[in-house]
Amino acid sequence: MPWDDEFECMPLEKLQRFQLKKFKETLDWVYEKIPFYRKKFDEKGIKPQAVKALEDIHKLPMTIKNDLRDNYPFGLCAVPMNQVVRIHASSGTTGKPITGPYTKEDLEQWTECMARNLFSAGIRPGDMIQNAYGHGLFTGGLGFHQGAVRLGCTVVPTGSGMTERQITLLKDFGAKALFCTPSYALTIAERAEEMKVDIRSLPVSIGVFGAEPWTIGIRDEIEHRMGIKAMEAYGLTELSGPGVAFDCEAQDGLHINEDHFLAEIVDPVTLEPLPLGEKGELIFTSLQRRAMPMIRYRTKDITRFRRETCVCGRTFLKMDKIFGRSDDMLIISGVNVFPSQIEALLLDIQEVEPQYVLVVGKKGHLDHLAVKVEAKPGVIEAGEQKKAEVEKKISNHIRGMMGIGVKIELLAPKTITRSEGKAMRVIDQRPKG
Amino acid sequence: MPWDDEFECMPLEKLQRFQLKKFKETLDWVYEKIPFYRKKFDEKGIKPQAVKALEDIHKLPMTIKNDLRDNYPFGLCAVPMNQVVRIHASSGTTGKPITGPYTKEDLEQWTECMARNLFSAGIRPGDMIQNAYGHGLFTGGLGFHQGAVRLGCTVVPTGSGMTERQITLLKDFGAKALFCTPSYALTIAERAEEMKVDIRSLPVSIGVFGAEPWTIGIRDEIEHRMGIKAMEAYGLTELSGPGVAFDCEAQDGLHINEDHFLAEIVDPVTLEPLPLGEKGELIFTSLQRRAMPMIRYRTKDITRFRRETCVCGRTFLKMDKIFGRSDDMLIISGVNVFPSQIEALLLDIQEVEPQYVLVVGKKGHLDHLAVKVEAKPGVIEAGEQKKAEVEKKISNHIRGMMGIGVKIELLAPKTITRSEGKAMRVIDQRPKG
Repeated sequence: MPWDDEFECMPLEKLQRFQLKKFKETLDWVYEKIPFYRKKFDEKGIKPQAVKALEDIHKLPMTIKNDLRDNYPFGLCAVPMNQVVRIHASSGTTGKPITGPYTKEDLEQWTECMARNLFSAGIRPGDMIQNAYGHGLFTGGLGFHQGAVRLGCTVVPTGSGMTERQITLLKDFGAKALFCTPSYALTIAERAEEMKVDIRSLPVSIGVFGAEPWTIGIRDEIEHRMGIKAMEAYGLTELSGPGVAFDCEAQDGLHINEDHFLAEIVDPVTLEPLPLGEKGELIFTSLQRRAMPMIRYRTKDITRFRRETCVCGRTFLKMDKIFGRSDDMLIISGVNVFPSQIEALLLDIQEVEPQYVLVVGKKGHLDHLAVKVEAKPGVIEAGEQKKAEVEKKISNHIRGMMGIGVKIELLAPKTITRSEGKAMRVIDQRPKG
Repeated sequence: MPWDDEFECMPLEKLQRFQLKKFKETLDWVYEKIPFYRKKFDEKGIKPQAVKALEDIHKLPMTIKNDLRDNYPFGLCAVPMNQVVRIHASSGTTGKPITGPYTKEDLEQWTECMARNLFSAGIRPGDMIQNAYGHGLFTGGLGFHQGAVRLGCTVVPTGSGMTERQITLLKDFGAKALFCTPSYALTIAERAEEMKVDIRSLPVSIGVFGAEPWTIGIRDEIEHRMGIKAMEAYGLTELSGPGVAFDCEAQDGLHINEDHFLAEIVDPVTLEPLPLGEKGELIFTSLQRRAMPMIRYRTKDITRFRRETCVCGRTFLKMDKIFGRSDDMLIISGVNVFPSQIEALLLDIQEVEPQYVLVVGKKGHLDHLAVKVEAKPGVIEAGEQKKAEVEKKISNHIRGMMGIGVKIELLAPKTITRSEGKAMRVIDQRPKG
């Protein structure tokens, strides 16, 4: 059951007419208001008026993260600051943050996208939700907050961290749904086991997780350990935050809010469009944003599309769970490898926990990969021989499935730092520059 | 210039008629909906209908923090959970947290109180504000957020912590106002000096600070170091959060939102009402809250009232800055001492920074006080004799002003942990129980 029948179940032809109209308006808007886009369009010799069909999008230049950094803080903002009512920013761990300014209408649209997302995940008016996303500059906290307020929920804004308190409140208040990153959900599940709190017996029955890529294996693991349905919210600061694409009850691909975002898949090297169903880099053009519209923004996320009417009734384009990021791709023994593939293979192994770190180094022109992964209690204690056996089992499994050799190091339980937000899964020791 | 002329400048007689009407409604409401209050009223043999005048409030029983703990989590909630749209909670460092449930209307009223507060502090529609309060369960973050949204500001929700980023954003975004605790403002000022960022030259010109008691000396210190007006927001989780009382441009006492809160001053020992102008414990009764009304809540805060029309035009009752908390009062050599008095005296001393910790122990029946305070750069380096001189100067000043002997320990600069939220100024080493 959709939150907004009209758009979420719109017939394709009608949807595309709507998209084209909004697409043209957006092009006119950015050309008029943002010198950066006008210059780029002029350089390509294309005027907004030349765009007559959705397919013409391929003629337009792309936007990359560095364009946002170069125009920090507000060079890509299309409205005067007194029309900006909110500014979020990405954490900016590397250099300048990415700023996201919003008009009042932008917030309204974002809230609506999040309401669809949460409703689709099974949240209903009157439900109590515990929002354990970091609140503040990060779009997660307030984004989910606004969506839940729109639905008419009881919001418990815990923020991230203080894991024992999170668990106590889940028990004492009895929230039906939990919002956080998937890695923090695992942290909560693990800490609850240590506290002898059986999360499976609590009222919480839905989790809406996002802000980092996670495999179906991790989803199954969380669902099993917490006794909940683990649903996804996909988004990025550059496109207003979470609420760009979302799971429905089928949990079979994420629906893209197509009335807000025009989505493409391109070859990450040639940047040429790929046929429907092929795996490539995800590109988004915003259709309704006013303060900071994005034209053909390269997400770096790798996925593929399916155009089908879902069992939930929604007609929005579906995308697979993010397979990896184009800039996270490693070349190991000449094979293209995404961290998510390693994660999936680790989850096949009984003797380990889903807590791991990939350490990447360089050997000649190729990457070299070491996998540190935590053993389940008892495995290390069983002695060196058992440890070596399990390490061999894992490396054989990875070699068998992917044809690459990786070094496995089995660690004692609880030795990898737990995440309260986005997990750090890859440590890159390759020389810079 | 008030935000809401009608109420903020209402003639006393009309205000009191309004208060009496809301007071009676609140009494009927709690008696009908909350067994805790009904029982307490019945025990005192008082029915809501017996209350005919505001003065009759003295016949009613008081509420204390332990009543909230005993009724954790929702025993004092007057509405079913599906009418609760938000739940905040106090940090609960000692035992169970205090929970604050809100109906939609409660949030609306709270937001209005905060809008008055911010407007009174000089914030105007279109101003950019940087909200460095912790967001989440704590009422500070979202409380200030809502008030600023209501005014039509550009909100930058930084949350607390990441001090260097706070300073970078003050510089890059150019917010006009900063919201945080006074102790965090000092931390920001200090870090900016280290970063060679001159906050005085930045656009930020107003700070709205609260969530912990602070002296006029600290206010002056912040104003001087940041080149801003430092305004106060007073409130507590039990009464919806910040926005209960606030500074106006006169900075001469805090205006209490009297259409929302009925205020009393009582003797903290006998609990008898004190005449206007006498110093005692502040008691509040909420007049418009629906989910968790409070009848005669003992704040433990010590202050005094003034009834005068302020130069700003507001007629609301004024209270002095909080002088201390009744449960923070120390008995040193038979003299009643509040930490704020020590703070004020430390601020008179040139050679020290406003960074201190009071360590309280017991000697027989009396408290024993040691004051650790940071020296300004150069003082410690000047040698033992200079150090002893300054320590003596401070202890003489305190003995001269208060008649008590305290042990002073001068510390090297930056040795006391900086606060990102509420400061921990008193370390109590007295035996418990």
